[in-house]
Amino acid sequence: MKINGTPYRTIWLAKDGKTVEIIDQTRLPHELVVMALRSLDDAARSIKDMWVRGAPLIGATAAYGMALAAVGDASDAGLERAYQVLHATRPTAINLKWALDEMMAALKTLPVGERIGAAYQRAAEICDEDSAQNAALGEHGAAIIAEHHKAKRRTINILTHCNAGWLATVDWGTALAPVYKAFDSGIPLHVWVDETRPRNQGASLTARELNWHGVPHTVIADNTGGHLMQHGMVDLCIVGTDRTTRNGDVCNKIGTYLKALAARDNDVPFYVGLPSPTIDWTVADGVREIPIEERSAREQTHIFGRTEDGQVCEVQVTPDGSPAVNYGFDVTPARLVTGLITERGVCEASPEGLRGLFPERA
Amino acid sequence: MKINGTPYRTIWLAKDGKTVEIIDQTRLPHELVVMALRSLDDAARSIKDMWVRGAPLIGATAAYGMALAAVGDASDAGLERAYQVLHATRPTAINLKWALDEMMAALKTLPVGERIGAAYQRAAEICDEDSAQNAALGEHGAAIIAEHHKAKRRTINILTHCNAGWLATVDWGTALAPVYKAFDSGIPLHVWVDETRPRNQGASLTARELNWHGVPHTVIADNTGGHLMQHGMVDLCIVGTDRTTRNGDVCNKIGTYLKALAARDNDVPFYVGLPSPTIDWTVADGVREIPIEERSAREQTHIFGRTEDGQVCEVQVTPDGSPAVNYGFDVTPARLVTGLITERGVCEASPEGLRGLFPERA
Repeated sequence: MKINGTPYRTIWLAKDGKTVEIIDQTRLPHELVVMALRSLDDAARSIKDMWVRGAPLIGATAAYGMALAAVGDASDAGLERAYQVLHATRPTAINLKWALDEMMAALKTLPVGERIGAAYQRAAEICDEDSAQNAALGEHGAAIIAEHHKAKRRTINILTHCNAGWLATVDWGTALAPVYKAFDSGIPLHVWVDETRPRNQGASLTARELNWHGVPHTVIADNTGGHLMQHGMVDLCIVGTDRTTRNGDVCNKIGTYLKALAARDNDVPFYVGLPSPTIDWTVADGVREIPIEERSAREQTHIFGRTEDGQVCEVQVTPDGSPAVNYGFDVTPARLVTGLITERGVCEASPEGLRGLFPERA
Repeated sequence: MKINGTPYRTIWLAKDGKTVEIIDQTRLPHELVVMALRSLDDAARSIKDMWVRGAPLIGATAAYGMALAAVGDASDAGLERAYQVLHATRPTAINLKWALDEMMAALKTLPVGERIGAAYQRAAEICDEDSAQNAALGEHGAAIIAEHHKAKRRTINILTHCNAGWLATVDWGTALAPVYKAFDSGIPLHVWVDETRPRNQGASLTARELNWHGVPHTVIADNTGGHLMQHGMVDLCIVGTDRTTRNGDVCNKIGTYLKALAARDNDVPFYVGLPSPTIDWTVADGVREIPIEERSAREQTHIFGRTEDGQVCEVQVTPDGSPAVNYGFDVTPARLVTGLITERGVCEASPEGLRGLFPERA
């Protein structure tokens, strides 16, 4: 998407054809800093220290990490070591392992001398595939927004939670791909951005990318969505997901469930944008079966921000001695979800709905 | 309630019998600073600059402000001027006007020479009445917590939103009065404290006062309550209210409605603690009729906290150029409320329920 008029992706090859460049997302929203990755270790650090985040972008960065590793040592042992180093950066990230396996499959049968070129090529393909998948999802979702606009003939208000935008992917995003597609096609819209405590991905990342691209938006406290829906100020919700079960239960950033409840109570459609790799066909009941990650309490007790004199620092908001707990995700039961927007189209959040779009999984 | 073992109220008469002392709540949670109010102007500033906040405490401070004014000028003109000055500090605060009217009624028929003593006496009564009313509410609510404990024979987990504790009143609080009464009677309990964005009254005030009194508690993001309720980690919710309609609709801090929805979806009882002066008998449908205050967007885009070196400062969390909006309250429809806990007992959130407890209003 665009940063003040200039098209960007979150990861790209520099003009030298070897160096990989990324946006250091830990510096957002206050600074746009492009980092050059020149080695396996650079790539591993960029994932581990969360310069890049979001499952698809982590996968893409790992793929390019394998290419950077091949430049140094394209032998079987070198690739094997790179795989281990990259896999260890965030061992629970599904896309990371998937991308590494793709790279190994593409490289290991080739002569060592052909591996560098092939690695850059496959990494570029992985990026393009992610972008194309999200663009397709975006078209299907934009059609829903267009229907609302056709019926209401006014600006369409969309509420989203967390960051499922292009900064979490290679391009377009998941939940925000429909927003960008609709906006770029001229549909008047406005996005309510949940700040998404405790890590503030909405306030810092979603607001940042919508602002860069020029999409009208307003940041709100996570507490606000119910009131907005009670008063007709939300036409539809679109959120992303980290994992959707084969029943259509949606695991996403903590607080998503509360918005889905408010949407149901006020007859506001609640959609989830998900590229099919995030469907976990092995799990049925999300609330019972998906373990919820407990993250550092410090993310709750301390907040990063920019002081008046431009310093970025961390401040404590709770009193000394008051404990906090930080669950990262919650599960929205399928019964509260109006539809799942995938790269193949939109389906009901149900076993039948998902099997209809992905018959090869039936 | 107690601060590290020592009983406190939020407002009290100093040993000289003239000076009024308060806790400067703008310094919480990081510092306990007691401020001396020695004049009408001190009292007015303490309300205007929110050293004191919470409807009952504002009323009590205004009452003592009239006493401080009487020391300087107890004439009819002096009292009239004090009334105007204090009323202008927060003109929409119902309790403020009520307390000022009470003081005027008690003083204006007296000879000027008797007014100072009578003013201090009536102000002290207003404080004692608030404390007694909340204590009674607390006993009724504690009985509900005791029932849960009797049935479950384990620690009872209570979720609350915002600050409706003793810091918002003269003593005991409203939503937290049942918690303190139950805790002091030996019932094992634990409080989930919603941080309550954007002003963080939960993280800064509720956590602070529970911590001081020794009540086990954990601060959570406002997004977390639904997940906790899905997993049986909340036995009941108790919140306060700024205004309850005669139908039982509850206007309270933004986000209360989302917790009530989650409570209903998971069969968790949802109670509201309210002293009867917060019932607005002139309003029926809260969602339609209660105008919701829109506060400064800066409360959303900037957060106060303490840096590592002990400075309290404000940091910006949103990108430059991203607008924010800040609705202060929402309305929870009566259908989502299990019961209203008042100083006269607990009733259904309905016209019949409220009329049953307050037949003089029927």
